[in-house]
Amino acid sequence: MHYIQDLSHDFSSIGHLIEPRSVAVIGASADPSRIGGRPIRWMLESGFDGPIYPVNPNRQEVQGLRAYASVQDLPEAPDAAVVAVSAAQVLEALVALGDKGTRAAVIFSSGFAEMGPEGAAVQLEMRAIARRYGMRILGPNSLGLFNARRNWFPTFTTTFESGWPNPGGISIVSQSGAFGSHIATLARNAGLGAPLCVMTGNEADVSVGEVIGWLATDPQTTVIAAYIEGIKDGATLMAGLAAARRAKKPVILMKVGRSAIGSHAAKSHTASIAGDDVVADAIFAEFGAIRAHSAEQLLDFANVAAHGIYPAQNTLGIVTISGGAGVLMSDAAEEYGVSLPEMPEAAQQELRAVLPFAAFRNPIDCTAHLVNDTSLLGKFISSMMREGAYSSVIGFFAQIAGAEPFASILLDEVQAKRAEFPDRLFVLVGVMSPELRRRYAAIGVSVFEDATRAVAAVAAMGRLGDTFAAPAHVARTATGQVNLPKSNPSEAGAKALLADHGIAFARESLCTTARQAADMAADIGFPVVLKIVSPDIPHKTEIGGVLLGVADPAAVKAGYDILIDRAHKANPQARIEGVLVAQQVQGGVETIMGIKNDPVFGPVAMFGLGGIFAEVIRDVAFRRCPFDVGEARALIGRTRGAAVLLGARGRPCADIGAAADMLSRLSVFAASAGAGIDSIDLNPVVILDDGKGAYALDALIALAAPD
Amino acid sequence: MHYIQDLSHDFSSIGHLIEPRSVAVIGASADPSRIGGRPIRWMLESGFDGPIYPVNPNRQEVQGLRAYASVQDLPEAPDAAVVAVSAAQVLEALVALGDKGTRAAVIFSSGFAEMGPEGAAVQLEMRAIARRYGMRILGPNSLGLFNARRNWFPTFTTTFESGWPNPGGISIVSQSGAFGSHIATLARNAGLGAPLCVMTGNEADVSVGEVIGWLATDPQTTVIAAYIEGIKDGATLMAGLAAARRAKKPVILMKVGRSAIGSHAAKSHTASIAGDDVVADAIFAEFGAIRAHSAEQLLDFANVAAHGIYPAQNTLGIVTISGGAGVLMSDAAEEYGVSLPEMPEAAQQELRAVLPFAAFRNPIDCTAHLVNDTSLLGKFISSMMREGAYSSVIGFFAQIAGAEPFASILLDEVQAKRAEFPDRLFVLVGVMSPELRRRYAAIGVSVFEDATRAVAAVAAMGRLGDTFAAPAHVARTATGQVNLPKSNPSEAGAKALLADHGIAFARESLCTTARQAADMAADIGFPVVLKIVSPDIPHKTEIGGVLLGVADPAAVKAGYDILIDRAHKANPQARIEGVLVAQQVQGGVETIMGIKNDPVFGPVAMFGLGGIFAEVIRDVAFRRCPFDVGEARALIGRTRGAAVLLGARGRPCADIGAAADMLSRLSVFAASAGAGIDSIDLNPVVILDDGKGAYALDALIALAAPD
Repeated sequence: MHYIQDLSHDFSSIGHLIEPRSVAVIGASADPSRIGGRPIRWMLESGFDGPIYPVNPNRQEVQGLRAYASVQDLPEAPDAAVVAVSAAQVLEALVALGDKGTRAAVIFSSGFAEMGPEGAAVQLEMRAIARRYGMRILGPNSLGLFNARRNWFPTFTTTFESGWPNPGGISIVSQSGAFGSHIATLARNAGLGAPLCVMTGNEADVSVGEVIGWLATDPQTTVIAAYIEGIKDGATLMAGLAAARRAKKPVILMKVGRSAIGSHAAKSHTASIAGDDVVADAIFAEFGAIRAHSAEQLLDFANVAAHGIYPAQNTLGIVTISGGAGVLMSDAAEEYGVSLPEMPEAAQQELRAVLPFAAFRNPIDCTAHLVNDTSLLGKFISSMMREGAYSSVIGFFAQIAGAEPFASILLDEVQAKRAEFPDRLFVLVGVMSPELRRRYAAIGVSVFEDATRAVAAVAAMGRLGDTFAAPAHVARTATGQVNLPKSNPSEAGAKALLADHGIAFARESLCTTARQAADMAADIGFPVVLKIVSPDIPHKTEIGGVLLGVADPAAVKAGYDILIDRAHKANPQARIEGVLVAQQVQGGVETIMGIKNDPVFGPVAMFGLGGIFAEVIRDVAFRRCPFDVGEARALIGRTRGAAVLLGARGRPCADIGAAADMLSRLSVFAASAGAGIDSIDLNPVVILDDGKGAYALDALIALAAPD
Repeated sequence: MHYIQDLSHDFSSIGHLIEPRSVAVIGASADPSRIGGRPIRWMLESGFDGPIYPVNPNRQEVQGLRAYASVQDLPEAPDAAVVAVSAAQVLEALVALGDKGTRAAVIFSSGFAEMGPEGAAVQLEMRAIARRYGMRILGPNSLGLFNARRNWFPTFTTTFESGWPNPGGISIVSQSGAFGSHIATLARNAGLGAPLCVMTGNEADVSVGEVIGWLATDPQTTVIAAYIEGIKDGATLMAGLAAARRAKKPVILMKVGRSAIGSHAAKSHTASIAGDDVVADAIFAEFGAIRAHSAEQLLDFANVAAHGIYPAQNTLGIVTISGGAGVLMSDAAEEYGVSLPEMPEAAQQELRAVLPFAAFRNPIDCTAHLVNDTSLLGKFISSMMREGAYSSVIGFFAQIAGAEPFASILLDEVQAKRAEFPDRLFVLVGVMSPELRRRYAAIGVSVFEDATRAVAAVAAMGRLGDTFAAPAHVARTATGQVNLPKSNPSEAGAKALLADHGIAFARESLCTTARQAADMAADIGFPVVLKIVSPDIPHKTEIGGVLLGVADPAAVKAGYDILIDRAHKANPQARIEGVLVAQQVQGGVETIMGIKNDPVFGPVAMFGLGGIFAEVIRDVAFRRCPFDVGEARALIGRTRGAAVLLGARGRPCADIGAAADMLSRLSVFAASAGAGIDSIDLNPVVILDDGKGAYALDALIALAAPD
């Protein structure tokens, strides 16, 4: 696959699926507990604002509505249809709907790609029908969707037996029906406003990426929460994520299959081929989508994101009635990467005058005294806002937050400060009634019972802020022409090909006379390494066949003779090809750079520290190709080992500029070479001290297997 | 500090604090909302089964009880007392209580060590009074405690305004009052049975470790949940943890301060890496206490632990109605380290005959079909129990778990299987009413709304099971006599001292003639390394001053002459001390071993892979000294980098036996040397291929500063 460059996409036709004006239910049931009956029940109970046409050849009437014998008999073309018939009848129903002029169909029926190759073939026909009629299809094997903003409930989920969704701006899209409705249920029970949920099932046509793209343009959606099991269409997903980023709408997403075991289970379960998880992670990071690692975290992040405050260069101020909770949140802030700057010294002194022995550095621990003197609360928060200038504040008040009379005072105070500082993010940690929690939600304040979760959510908002503040990334175009060999090149061939595209290798040359060696060394630059080259001397060091740090022409000449002499002494029969004169690349940091051509997202570049770092600790970072030097620097910075390059523990700072340049060139090469390459390894790449360059010492290119 | 050997301790006197028969309240208030009034209110409302004696010189009666003017006036010695007077009056009250014969006092009053050195001095007097009278003191600056099993509520927390604790076996101990009552409130609201909570405050006398020890012996406590901010008394904490382990009672604990970076004036790599928190972590691991990273996780683990099932060598079977949830839980299982073995093939086939196209490997994905054919449920669970023989099972049923008619069928089925397989751990993930959740709790099944949290809890139970199944560790005694030098030894001195105690160093010797070098090489064993030694030639390799792999006596003699010759040529004025002949230790894995003398827990050993691994990635593990070779192996195995030693990526397996032997010897040396040593670094220690040994190449010993 070539790299994906075009991220534009027209998402508008999804609107027929999410906001139709009329609906036909194919396979409508008079029994409101059956799959073909439940959507009608939900829409009748909630009051869908448009005609509902049950289609059932055996009934005159379904749940009080006039029924029709067939799609042909319908009095008009329904905007959308629910298809709840057996798998064998689905294609016929779709053709009838297409002929009638229906623009969207939700297919509950299962028995397609998830059942094996035969079902997959039928599913391809389904997709062809969708394309032919310009009709959008959700599913098959989908639990459907719901959009409570329109009382539109084409779903057979049972979740509404325990209540309707709450109004609000969170929209959910999930590949899984069971998990999607689980998330929707948890969101409703937690009081979150998540009235829209689309479950894409087998994705014969509409994919999760396309729904994300549509939601990005939907004025009623402020936060997009997505659940993904496997990505088949990388281009559409990226187009959807790009649209959300352009619209500055947060995408919080959860993707299962992080572990090796998980990936295995993904293959055995879904009809999709799961892309490699680390690649997906790199794509999410590229587009600023925030990854959540559990359903709970997905909803935590969506909860806070719904307030619409995403502070770039986030700073967190903590006010607490428990010093320990302050330490706990400091731990969490470090873990989740949000900074906790100290209060200015003058402000600390001012507060200390009011309450001696309390801690005002940050966290501000106002201790239980706060409960006795509630006037302190406003003073402390104001000082944090004005003097501390924190973009986010978390207040830890435990059960006190819900206990009168403190509860009312706190609510008033927080409300006043919210109004005074509308651009700051306020989050509370406390235990309180659902009613009080709703009142906080109404003034844009999320309440958590767990302090660690609160910090994680605030950190996520900061990452969103940084994404929205950054200029949209313009991918560097792959302009270079690459002429790939017919078969996998040798090491020398790979080096030569990559060197043509600007990759710096350590220079080396085989010399057959002392004079030639000295000239070559002068050309390469001193010091050099001299190595005996003989097919009969495999272990050079054991005979003293390697000389390091040879510093001048005379030493090279002398060294040449010494090596030839040692080789003869060690093995008089040895065939001696000469002496390799090589640039001495020593003392730098060994790293690895590589390319993997991902089947879903195209060529992806990897960077990591070398050897066991990359292999055992997996301290590596990935990014889609191509990218410029700035992105390459960011990629290098994402590894924990980058601290080594930045001069950890008294080491000199490494030439990250040269490394970033090489990585960017490699990414351009890979994008230009496109589908022909399977993978590239530059291992090791030695990054020397700043100003001294970075050199690849070995190269391996694996071409893609021919189709 | 010398290493702590004696872990026995008599915890019984704490009983006067937790289960007294009578109580006096010093500073009793008639106002039930005041600090001196609230405990009386709680005890009157709940019905404390014993006399309550308010002490207040200004009142005849307090909250309907006869009040006394002074402690002297009390009709009997109260078992325990609550002290709610100002800081200045506390000592006098304690003396009066001691004279009267009171056995325990709970001190609410603040204004002691938390306020500075003056308060700390008063607190020391308090401790002396406690010792003099044999009276146990909780606090000062404590929110008190409660033991609802006895209706004993010596606390001024407000949490009971929203309800009493639930009965059950979970007991809480917390250094912080605010956080302790927060946890207790969350536990109550979640329906957990946590009727006892002790908040130790400033710990003038009673520490969190001692309370843990008492709870270990308390027949009504089945699970101990602890919250720790800082440990002052390591010996008592370890005694408490040891008592809990002997009683096979789980200790789930949370300690804040993970991010706090340790020693300020770090004298070695080891000391700089071994912050307070990593040492505490090693202690918790040694005693099998399970560390929770948030209040929520503390309660999750306590919740499941309360069922009393701790499967050693835990295996997890997952049954789910959502394939994606199965993958999610597989991800979590890998992250939390619980194994997911596959179902036997025959059992899979049998189940496949019942429900084709479902997945039966593990996770078992029975899809939404389960809701249509509920008879499958029992069949699937039985097969997992019998054929799969999983020790733990998690069922994911989302909101279906709470929706009738499925909800009742599921409850009956789970109840039946619990009865049939009483030793297995059952956990559900689902959304349901609090009432239904209580019914599950009553049959020993915890219900989570979040799948990831369920897996984390099950994994924790397995770790408890492994701890309880292992023979109690007998610490190896430090028998050796160590004669430390008066001041920090040189590298050579440190090597010599440690070599005397069995640490293997690479052999090396300075030779001044070619003949001597050849003899020494023969003694060390070939190949050897030859290095020129001259104070005037700092960069040996640049003049070719190092010869590797010198393989026989003749080559050593020749090499000696070459080096001397090169040195003369490079710098005719160089003072040449000779040639160092050293054992060639090459090709192994570089590691670091170290010792840090922790002020709380005594000498602690560190192991990690060398260089940037230890310093940047902090992939190191710690254990209290001394320990045997088996423990040393376990310590090595706890680093992620251990994969390198075990032959990751085609590497040969390293001599872990030799490394473990060295590490154990180092730990014995450190424990024997005791307080005199501040830290030791062996960096690097090269571990060669299996059978070839492990050798330290450098040693640094920093002595403790004299008192």
